[in-house]
Amino acid sequence: MKPLVPQDCSINTATLGFKAPISIIIDDVASHGFGAIAPWRRELAGEEIRAVARHVRDAGLKVNGYCRSGPIPASSAEQREACHQENCKALREAAELEAQCFVIVAGGLPKGSRDIESARDQLADGLERLLREAEALGVPLAVEPLHPMYAADRCCINTLHHALDLCDAVDPDASRKIGVAIDAYHVWWDPMLRDGVARAGAGNRIMAFHICDWLVPTRDLLMDRGMMGDGVIRLHEMRQMVTEAGYRGVAEIEIFSDHWQTVDNTTTLQTCAERVSKI
Amino acid sequence: MKPLVPQDCSINTATLGFKAPISIIIDDVASHGFGAIAPWRRELAGEEIRAVARHVRDAGLKVNGYCRSGPIPASSAEQREACHQENCKALREAAELEAQCFVIVAGGLPKGSRDIESARDQLADGLERLLREAEALGVPLAVEPLHPMYAADRCCINTLHHALDLCDAVDPDASRKIGVAIDAYHVWWDPMLRDGVARAGAGNRIMAFHICDWLVPTRDLLMDRGMMGDGVIRLHEMRQMVTEAGYRGVAEIEIFSDHWQTVDNTTTLQTCAERVSKI
Repeated sequence: MKPLVPQDCSINTATLGFKAPISIIIDDVASHGFGAIAPWRRELAGEEIRAVARHVRDAGLKVNGYCRSGPIPASSAEQREACHQENCKALREAAELEAQCFVIVAGGLPKGSRDIESARDQLADGLERLLREAEALGVPLAVEPLHPMYAADRCCINTLHHALDLCDAVDPDASRKIGVAIDAYHVWWDPMLRDGVARAGAGNRIMAFHICDWLVPTRDLLMDRGMMGDGVIRLHEMRQMVTEAGYRGVAEIEIFSDHWQTVDNTTTLQTCAERVSKI
Repeated sequence: MKPLVPQDCSINTATLGFKAPISIIIDDVASHGFGAIAPWRRELAGEEIRAVARHVRDAGLKVNGYCRSGPIPASSAEQREACHQENCKALREAAELEAQCFVIVAGGLPKGSRDIESARDQLADGLERLLREAEALGVPLAVEPLHPMYAADRCCINTLHHALDLCDAVDPDASRKIGVAIDAYHVWWDPMLRDGVARAGAGNRIMAFHICDWLVPTRDLLMDRGMMGDGVIRLHEMRQMVTEAGYRGVAEIEIFSDHWQTVDNTTTLQTCAERVSKI
């Protein structure tokens, strides 16, 4: 396997802590040699999406993923409908951005609920509906299993196999554009990981590969992800797994970190560029 | 299912924050009507173990579990041997206490290692060796899968199925006394939970059932467990699962919590007694 170079990588803009407007971020990411960008909806609020898409294209970048869906399970039919409409709006933005996938962060337990099985059932129903919209717009969906520590409040899909079961449920003959985002941070611990990646590859379902690192100790459940190389994840092995499974897309660097958010973007981008060469 | 009463429950002494000597704790736990206690090694340091065992018996309590093994994977053969000897010492204490099981918290990655697969291999070897000692002493082993957020630093066995695979590896014909501790906090999120509990029951491998709650939000990875009823775990359903799977032991209340550790023990024990009646 050739060493990873920035051109093979994407910067998820959360890594840069949303400190600068998207137009600056696009130029920064491109000037550091990265091949793609994964922006967040919050950055595009108030922007003309087509103009952003053009800027990204002109900078020589791809939009490898668009972040991200809101929750799908909800505590009432009205809320479910509102969430669906919001997700459809995000899908239209993803289409305008020519995003290679729209990331689904499924949502956890609806407020007041303890019933994770029901949340998962609701999710399957809601996702099937959203997939119809996504297909009409030509935007592939990437279901991202989140670490089990987020099961209650962020995402009730918590292993790769679980996400693949969900894909199979809404797309039994694997003919539609729905798959998974494999994020090293969320899945590195899973004893079924190797098997899950192979299954995802065989089903042509690997839509995205996200990297960062798991720090020891981890001081915060959300904002203490590590720069690649600073933690315990064997990113080279994981890259090998997804490559052997047929994935040819970029490695997206997504680091939620109180530390890195305060560092200036140039330093962060330079550090990312250096570190990926060792993966 | 009859409502749970304190007599059907055990107090894991960590719930009380190690604020009082074990002799006081034993009397407190018994006077609140609990049927069992699960003490920690640190509390017995300097105590005459047989005297503690007699005190527990005289108070009308059982020792349903003894906490706990040190890590089994290590970064050198010398360290592995030292860990093994320490675990053997703990097993002898468990035997003297007439503990119904010795809890195995397997250990995570050895210092400096990123190789979780190798840690898991080491664990299987070390556990097989420890099991021989445990059998000679008549102490059943309870492998506790810990939440995946502890995979790196505390325990590389992170799902119930994973723990059962390990039991099957070291005890292929299920003839020996090794099984699992099912802790609601660690496994509640697992989409394979129902299936795993049934498998554990069919193999006669449920050695312990631990309860507390998952708070939303969870503010700390280690010390923010909730009192039963304050979080999102469906403890009644989980109790039903383990009961249907044949478990007839106590429900052990184990709450690591910066909050509850500062509360006086009487209030904590009264609260536990009230809350279990709703499970």
